[in-house]
Amino acid sequence: MIDKKLEELLKQSVTKTLQEKNVLNKYTQVKENKQVIKEAYVAQPTKFDLRTELLSEKTKTSHQELFEGYIKELNETSAQLDTADRENVNPNHSTFRSLKMDETHNHNAAFLHGLYFQNISDLNSEISADSLSFMRLERDFGSFDLWQEDFIACCLAARNGWAMTVYSMTLKRYINTVVDLHDEHVLISAYPVIVMDCWEHSYYKDYLKNRKAYVYGMMKELNWDVIEERFKVADKIGALIK
Amino acid sequence: MIDKKLEELLKQSVTKTLQEKNVLNKYTQVKENKQVIKEAYVAQPTKFDLRTELLSEKTKTSHQELFEGYIKELNETSAQLDTADRENVNPNHSTFRSLKMDETHNHNAAFLHGLYFQNISDLNSEISADSLSFMRLERDFGSFDLWQEDFIACCLAARNGWAMTVYSMTLKRYINTVVDLHDEHVLISAYPVIVMDCWEHSYYKDYLKNRKAYVYGMMKELNWDVIEERFKVADKIGALIK
Amino acid sequence: MIDKKLEELLKQSVTKTLQEKNVLNKYTQVKENKQVIKEAYVAQPTKFDLRTELLSEKTKTSHQELFEGYIKELNETSAQLDTADRENVNPNHSTFRSLKMDETHNHNAAFLHGLYFQNISDLNSEISADSLSFMRLERDFGSFDLWQEDFIACCLAARNGWAMTVYSMTLKRYINTVVDLHDEHVLISAYPVIVMDCWEHSYYKDYLKNRKAYVYGMMKELNWDVIEERFKVADKIGALIK
Amino acid sequence: MIDKKLEELLKQSVTKTLQEKNVLNKYTQVKENKQVIKEAYVAQPTKFDLRTELLSEKTKTSHQELFEGYIKELNETSAQLDTADRENVNPNHSTFRSLKMDETHNHNAAFLHGLYFQNISDLNSEISADSLSFMRLERDFGSFDLWQEDFIACCLAARNGWAMTVYSMTLKRYINTVVDLHDEHVLISAYPVIVMDCWEHSYYKDYLKNRKAYVYGMMKELNWDVIEERFKVADKIGALIK
Repeated sequence: MIDKKLEELLKQSVTKTLQEKNVLNKYTQVKENKQVIKEAYVAQPTKFDLRTELLSEKTKTSHQELFEGYIKELNETSAQLDTADRENVNPNHSTFRSLKMDETHNHNAAFLHGLYFQNISDLNSEISADSLSFMRLERDFGSFDLWQEDFIACCLAARNGWAMTVYSMTLKRYINTVVDLHDEHVLISAYPVIVMDCWEHSYYKDYLKNRKAYVYGMMKELNWDVIEERFKVADKIGALIK
Repeated sequence: MIDKKLEELLKQSVTKTLQEKNVLNKYTQVKENKQVIKEAYVAQPTKFDLRTELLSEKTKTSHQELFEGYIKELNETSAQLDTADRENVNPNHSTFRSLKMDETHNHNAAFLHGLYFQNISDLNSEISADSLSFMRLERDFGSFDLWQEDFIACCLAARNGWAMTVYSMTLKRYINTVVDLHDEHVLISAYPVIVMDCWEHSYYKDYLKNRKAYVYGMMKELNWDVIEERFKVADKIGALIK
Repeated sequence: MIDKKLEELLKQSVTKTLQEKNVLNKYTQVKENKQVIKEAYVAQPTKFDLRTELLSEKTKTSHQELFEGYIKELNETSAQLDTADRENVNPNHSTFRSLKMDETHNHNAAFLHGLYFQNISDLNSEISADSLSFMRLERDFGSFDLWQEDFIACCLAARNGWAMTVYSMTLKRYINTVVDLHDEHVLISAYPVIVMDCWEHSYYKDYLKNRKAYVYGMMKELNWDVIEERFKVADKIGALIK
Repeated sequence: MIDKKLEELLKQSVTKTLQEKNVLNKYTQVKENKQVIKEAYVAQPTKFDLRTELLSEKTKTSHQELFEGYIKELNETSAQLDTADRENVNPNHSTFRSLKMDETHNHNAAFLHGLYFQNISDLNSEISADSLSFMRLERDFGSFDLWQEDFIACCLAARNGWAMTVYSMTLKRYINTVVDLHDEHVLISAYPVIVMDCWEHSYYKDYLKNRKAYVYGMMKELNWDVIEERFKVADKIGALIK
């Protein structure tokens, strides 16, 4: 397809530009038969102990197992990427592409679940009017009530996915978003502060198709202490960017 | 479908829990016939003046127009969301859902293009071995050369999409990612530092299907000064999170 | 964006080419204020009475309601499409596009559910070695057992989606496919003969995350009489195409 | 995760049910170290010779090469699927799943391109008012002109994808559909009769972002003789189904 000689020349040219600056020779690792991109990481699943009575024990146990499965697959994908062929990659069929797709899928699944478990199931859920969370939601949505209305709408709009309140580093404000599955329609440059799982596995055992009942229930047990810490980080990120 | 009375009760209960804390009454806006979520923002397109000779003037002009189109649609979507019905939302067919989908699509398209135009077309492209960019890529990919190899592989793997180096706030390291279109397979909690457009509109006029030639060319003109500023922000974000 | 005069000229030219053949004048409907594309159709949900004991009554009822919901949304989408603006359409944000997306989503959801309900829950499930179904699966998969192995693998591979055996009008053979959600990764030019729902709502109430147990159970109650009729149609379609 | 013993029992039970009917023993292939699903097929690319002057020679050549690339990848995917592990499949990360995804992507890409090349570039394009194509489009869209308006709207709505007129075996009528990329938002049970490529690679070299000019041009050169043959098949399929 592509003229091999042209490609080789172009590649040498990129490398040469950098070599002239005495950069690459010094730093390039000795590679023999295979590449080693130091990518592999080993994520460890937290064991969550959800006290909420709005979800059955079976749902909780099963959800924890799903979470651990995602982490296992993330670690495996990462390990396989470490030595995947990066020379013969194309958008239609290549192992590297498939692995990168699975990496994002499992990465998002694992960390979204972590964020979700952390911010639900607070039996003493309470938001204070002088908390940063409250003030920021009021500032960016008009009122706490309007944020809540918008967030619930996002929960009901997801097609087996997620609703999130995120700090948008591009818009420099908090915004609600809808994600399908784990990685479709994801806003770039965003830091999640409130996360709700809207996959059927979150609620079907206990609420069947009544996602509304599940969501309204969960909203009453949001852990605003955990969320407050996230808003503090998000606000500092906002200050860095301006 | 859902028992209307149950739903009403649940909703009142959420609101009541909050009202008891004297929070909602005070802050809830008077709403009459329609909701006003203060969401609308008005993004303004920058006019980029790309000096690169690796892209034709026609490609540059057309790309600038596409960019401005995305911003126009983002603004329109945002304005429409401001008054969209949030009461009757479902995952299968509702205006709110469609608008949120288009919001993310155009948001990502607009800001990814901005990041891309800013970090290409530097005729004096040079990366210094003592820059933060260089040191972080060496730290997280093993060597600059290995980062480059991985990044180019991502460029070739995207199906009409994007390759990005991002700072991952979950993995606490820099990582390369592949995005299809503008919003599929997007890593959550990520801050982009290097962005390459791999849609066919970026290169087809000038390189036809030879995406490799386009990518190798662009790599030689990355604006490492712009990128360095992003790494500085990313590193500070990293420090906040730990 | 586009040169309006050029566009107008091109459009007139298409119409003119056809008018010269005395075609359009005669047939074009008088349109005044709005377009009327005769698209709207009214699908009617069948009431399925599943006798299987592998699914709880609650799962069955809830599933029937989901099915009826998809049909309702399909009908609504179709009605709205009838008068949707077709003049100002773009790929980034337009009502026509959103409606066409929802049309496909709900169309597939409605008919896939219909096909699924019809071909499961046969308490006297039996496949005869001299049935067309059996012979075709043996021909195209090597053996009935190998088809079954491949089909089950498809059931386990779907990400909240569907597994199907279809007659492929392009490959001129039966093939198994994996669909995510209702409309992603769908093979074109295919006629479904065996359909298995692998969304979490199919099994989570009764099997939690154990999709395998659900799938193995369902396989034992496939309604091979219903499936046989589909193979007969598929085979006739195959004969037409060759 | 899943109770291995339970799984084994369920699996034996499925097999046993079938063995009791003396079916499986007789037909199951001897398998030793690996599975052989007779899936592999070898598609051969046609060499299209497009005479249209609405597309440059460079666009035509490049498009033919893309087409051949899809067929090559389809054949490779199919060959790899033949021996892929079907025992350890999951929805999050497994080779079988990745291969099935790539199979559908390349299958659709290959056959959609074939259908497209066949039905464009007729310098003597002419549709007769007594052709089946014309009568069916009038019947199902109200008029030929309304079909055209709807089809063009679909062409402009696709996000790097396809517009198609298909015979829907579920709705028992012709309908226009919008596909993103090659396999997203694809209507099930559909037989394509008119196909337009709306990826940027179809038009960007010659029309830049002016997709409208490209589409209007292509509409004037549709090969109605080729399309007529497809309508004849579609109509016969319709007769089979009723």
